[in-house]
Amino acid sequence: MSRSNPKPGAYHHGDLRAALIAAGLRALEAVGSADLSLRQIARDTGVSATAVYHHFPDKRALLGALAASGFDRLGEHQLQAAAGAASQAEGFAAIGRAYVRFALAHPHLFRLMFSQGSGGGVQRQGKAAELLQANAAALASGNTAAEERIALQAWAVVHGLAMLMLDGQLPADDALIDALIDSGSLFQG
Amino acid sequence: MSRSNPKPGAYHHGDLRAALIAAGLRALEAVGSADLSLRQIARDTGVSATAVYHHFPDKRALLGALAASGFDRLGEHQLQAAAGAASQAEGFAAIGRAYVRFALAHPHLFRLMFSQGSGGGVQRQGKAAELLQANAAALASGNTAAEERIALQAWAVVHGLAMLMLDGQLPADDALIDALIDSGSLFQG
Repeated sequence: MSRSNPKPGAYHHGDLRAALIAAGLRALEAVGSADLSLRQIARDTGVSATAVYHHFPDKRALLGALAASGFDRLGEHQLQAAAGAASQAEGFAAIGRAYVRFALAHPHLFRLMFSQGSGGGVQRQGKAAELLQANAAALASGNTAAEERIALQAWAVVHGLAMLMLDGQLPADDALIDALIDSGSLFQG
Repeated sequence: MSRSNPKPGAYHHGDLRAALIAAGLRALEAVGSADLSLRQIARDTGVSATAVYHHFPDKRALLGALAASGFDRLGEHQLQAAAGAASQAEGFAAIGRAYVRFALAHPHLFRLMFSQGSGGGVQRQGKAAELLQANAAALASGNTAAEERIALQAWAVVHGLAMLMLDGQLPADDALIDALIDSGSLFQG
């Protein structure tokens, strides 16, 4: 968590907000959302608490920004995972696997994104399903009801896998993720 | 939450444990696990705090018992839902729908059952999937690898639906539960 602290005043306005979110994401994965503190993030970033409060008046505001950032990062991670796919079906499965792996790599962030109290979950409602839906469209052959169903079923299965693995109900095992997402008809419509 | 308080000493040993769990389940749904208090449950049950501590030395012990009771109740609820099914596939879907509806009807209990801190989740690992697996077996035609995969995919999808609905990401809507569980190939192997 230690990093060289730039001098106070070294940040431009937008840069400081981005630096605070980056420090917040590191603190979140290190200590969890309950123990995350705006004052500690000010210290980590080398600025005053007042400078932090200017961007995030309270912890809830920061957690909301971290959750929003999490959805952006999840989307980027999914797009990268699907970039080399040889077919639509393979891309769809890659997006699903990326969702579960992101959750396992960032457990505190993933829980925060979907916790009601963060403000993040409800504000970004549906965002996480957009990529799945875009890929489901290609499998549904123009049937929009089927497209919606396939996208939501796929979202449910990857979210369920992520939560069951995070909560220790299923082993957080790459081979199991592959087996449950690739095989069978689930991601084939 | 108010009920007639029996006199101290009115409970046999096993009866008191059951009464404390019943009072705990009511308190859990009323206030959530964070605000649940052993002293309040003693008052609700009409016994001394010492009598409660004899069965549950701390709050964590009570939460573990509530989670275990939750898994038993979920299983009963699923069995009842499947009792009138006309086919194996229909019974499998009924068990899946019952899982999601149980979560929506008992949100605090469901979260407790799957929270790592309760002691309940890990101890009862796999219990919740047993009924799904028993029904998946009938659809897998003796292919045990397929049986395992179908059961785990079905568990993931109903758990994911439950969590997304509890966290406000999807509407907690009976028609949506039916549409996502009944239609398509998901619960047909």
